[in-house]
Amino acid sequence: MIEHLSLPAPLEVPDRATVLRRATSDDLGAIVRLLADDPVSAGRGDTAATDDVGAYASALDEVIRDPGNDLLVAVDADGSVVATLQLTRIPGMARRGSTRLLVEAVRVASSRRSLGIGGALMRWVVDRAAPELGASLVQLTSDAARVDAHRFYRRLGFVDSHVGFKYRLPTAD
Amino acid sequence: MIEHLSLPAPLEVPDRATVLRRATSDDLGAIVRLLADDPVSAGRGDTAATDDVGAYASALDEVIRDPGNDLLVAVDADGSVVATLQLTRIPGMARRGSTRLLVEAVRVASSRRSLGIGGALMRWVVDRAAPELGASLVQLTSDAARVDAHRFYRRLGFVDSHVGFKYRLPTAD
Repeated sequence: MIEHLSLPAPLEVPDRATVLRRATSDDLGAIVRLLADDPVSAGRGDTAATDDVGAYASALDEVIRDPGNDLLVAVDADGSVVATLQLTRIPGMARRGSTRLLVEAVRVASSRRSLGIGGALMRWVVDRAAPELGASLVQLTSDAARVDAHRFYRRLGFVDSHVGFKYRLPTAD
Repeated sequence: MIEHLSLPAPLEVPDRATVLRRATSDDLGAIVRLLADDPVSAGRGDTAATDDVGAYASALDEVIRDPGNDLLVAVDADGSVVATLQLTRIPGMARRGSTRLLVEAVRVASSRRSLGIGGALMRWVVDRAAPELGASLVQLTSDAARVDAHRFYRRLGFVDSHVGFKYRLPTAD
């Protein structure tokens, strides 16, 4: 949990009461389903397999306890989890000592796409979370295959100025 | 400072005794000069201006105290700082609960380029630091203008599978 972040927060989703709150261990199943609900994630092994429950539960516990990270979920009026994202606050020297806010693992349930949930989430990140955390830069990487997502981030004012490199450790199965 | 990282560590730089260690507040000037020594950083405002010393000093202090971050410097046999980089350990749910290691602000002094320092640094990150920290993925973004750097990362086994988006807050001057 990152300190100084005003949560829960209402999200400006048209015609739907949607609230953003911190994830708890009770959200494990819902978050794992959101990851598996996305073809790119599923292609990387996030298939909500029973064998992986222990790894996901440990990861959720670690993220919740980490002072530099916040795992968030957006919930509908009936309490169902419709989206998730992770924030990491990163102090740094570059850009005259700028603090960055890294956004990872943004996922909206496939049944709730195109309703403005993703846009409301990201506007909350840049307009609310980043200033509250003293960050002057918000950054994320998006898989080259996610062409629609790239259009979405550009519309929100993000600039695709960088190339995102990943190195998968040989020991990772 | 991130726990469980074996430092200082010798770097495998050909023909030069080079050691990687954690930055201290005494390294402030050297790190600021390394940033200003890079044209892309300088173009973003890292010009080692006297007015910015306070911001850099606060940032250095914050990074050093942060349990999820390590700011490192490579030093020559005579103790002079020849390179720097920052590591951020990020637990997460995606990729079956993978922990990531984010690399930021890799800089080698212009007078020491092409001597194998950058390669030795990055090999230490993927071969030593990532396994010690339980990370199965190392990631970084590189400015689209750094074509030579992209070739360098590809040679080390990094895959440019992602697009890196940045959003600069309007309040950032």
